[in-house]
Amino acid sequence: MTADTGSTLVNGAPAHSIDAADRGLSYGDGVFETIAVVEHQPRLWDGHLQRLTVGCERLGFEAPARHEWLDDLSLLALPRFGVLRISVTRGMGGRGYAPPPSPRPTRIVRCLDAPTHPTEWWSPGVAVRFCRMRLAIQPALAGIKHLNRLEQVMARQEWQTPDIAEGLMETTDGRVIEATASNLIVDQGDRLSVPATHDGGVDGVMQTWLLDRAAALGATVERAAMRRDDLLTARGVMLTNSLIGLWPVRTIAERSMPHSPWADQLQSEITRSQAALMPTVTEP
Amino acid sequence: MTADTGSTLVNGAPAHSIDAADRGLSYGDGVFETIAVVEHQPRLWDGHLQRLTVGCERLGFEAPARHEWLDDLSLLALPRFGVLRISVTRGMGGRGYAPPPSPRPTRIVRCLDAPTHPTEWWSPGVAVRFCRMRLAIQPALAGIKHLNRLEQVMARQEWQTPDIAEGLMETTDGRVIEATASNLIVDQGDRLSVPATHDGGVDGVMQTWLLDRAAALGATVERAAMRRDDLLTARGVMLTNSLIGLWPVRTIAERSMPHSPWADQLQSEITRSQAALMPTVTEP
Repeated sequence: MTADTGSTLVNGAPAHSIDAADRGLSYGDGVFETIAVVEHQPRLWDGHLQRLTVGCERLGFEAPARHEWLDDLSLLALPRFGVLRISVTRGMGGRGYAPPPSPRPTRIVRCLDAPTHPTEWWSPGVAVRFCRMRLAIQPALAGIKHLNRLEQVMARQEWQTPDIAEGLMETTDGRVIEATASNLIVDQGDRLSVPATHDGGVDGVMQTWLLDRAAALGATVERAAMRRDDLLTARGVMLTNSLIGLWPVRTIAERSMPHSPWADQLQSEITRSQAALMPTVTEP
Repeated sequence: MTADTGSTLVNGAPAHSIDAADRGLSYGDGVFETIAVVEHQPRLWDGHLQRLTVGCERLGFEAPARHEWLDDLSLLALPRFGVLRISVTRGMGGRGYAPPPSPRPTRIVRCLDAPTHPTEWWSPGVAVRFCRMRLAIQPALAGIKHLNRLEQVMARQEWQTPDIAEGLMETTDGRVIEATASNLIVDQGDRLSVPATHDGGVDGVMQTWLLDRAAALGATVERAAMRRDDLLTARGVMLTNSLIGLWPVRTIAERSMPHSPWADQLQSEITRSQAALMPTVTEP
């Protein structure tokens, strides 16, 4: 099967639809991952599969086995550059919200076009804003990438100006956690900080990978509560996700931000590993 | 088209599946209603359609027109007793979380069997527990019945004992808001109170209808913040939703509760109007 854009597998079979009674649609009862495909290979695969598995455990059902996903991938001729979105829902059944005692999860693999962004967003960087929409504090769902994403959808529709790349989101009690579709790394001068996600937000696969790289290069890294001022007074702020890799933040709410030297170092790491769809990776 | 159990219409056409790229599945980007069908008629229809419309407005897309739903219903021969689940998602498209500029919503109508419960749950009443799972405080999504329902799913899977009918849910700061799939009406002696939903919970269509009936019968009604003790010291607690009508609460966390005289009066109102799937309605 050639992985044309829009190629979809549902439980291992080519399909373009799911049952209207699936709990993924009824309740957002599932988790997903968005994965970069570079040179025909899914990137940071282990990290994505681990977060997906943790997510299923948290929701209370068994994640598909690794070999099931690999069987799916073997059916797809992955493109040179693209995106894999893999999802797993609790499947059908149950009585209302009550899940069935033995769920048969629905496994969905979709192959999508690589998104396009201005090259300037990687260098010198992006302009970002603060969102009015707040993240609710919910320890039970924090860290995992579940299918209940209305907060992100509502936040992302606050702006249409194409020159704003991202919107930063704060919890209802004022802690900056992440952007709508990317994670933060904040250069505090003597250390790299990322917002704690014990009660909100998603643990970033690329963010974690970059922190490991930075630590290997000698950085002190920490997870901490962060407020607006911590960002505005930082030596530099970076946004990361598995598709874009890393964007330095050039302005926050129209205030200029310094350029962290870590931005260049970490972008080099991504390029060297072909870990994301950065221009340095996709445009040889 | 005969409305067998499982009859489904998607955008007005018989179908059993939706596109795997629908934003309803990807993000829970939509709203739904669960409606009792009694004597072949959907009940409290105006209330349900109003909440659905308010929900779409809140999420930022146009709700289907009333005549579209009515056209759908005209295609289904509704059973004497059953359940209609109607949903609307923002449809397909957009770039990641960013919605498409002109969404084409997906309209889903499903015809389901009426649920069954022990007759004792209507009289003398039900045993309920407190859930460990808390409701996050999120004013932007409060009141509407959106498709992001993981909190309810997680709460509902805390117990499997069939003698516990429902679980009460509190906000992360300790206010009782609702049960997993039903709303509260609390008899405070001199008035009927329902929990405020400005920052969490769903405004109940049956709950609102019953408050109107109670007010017409002379009750003072109010919306207020409520804690566990307010329930445990009340003259009676009732659970309501569009399918069950009204259940008096017999015990909360194994503590006996008094039987509110309002429970009988309001059940009579439901029976007289055939407003829900109560035994007095479905078993003549």
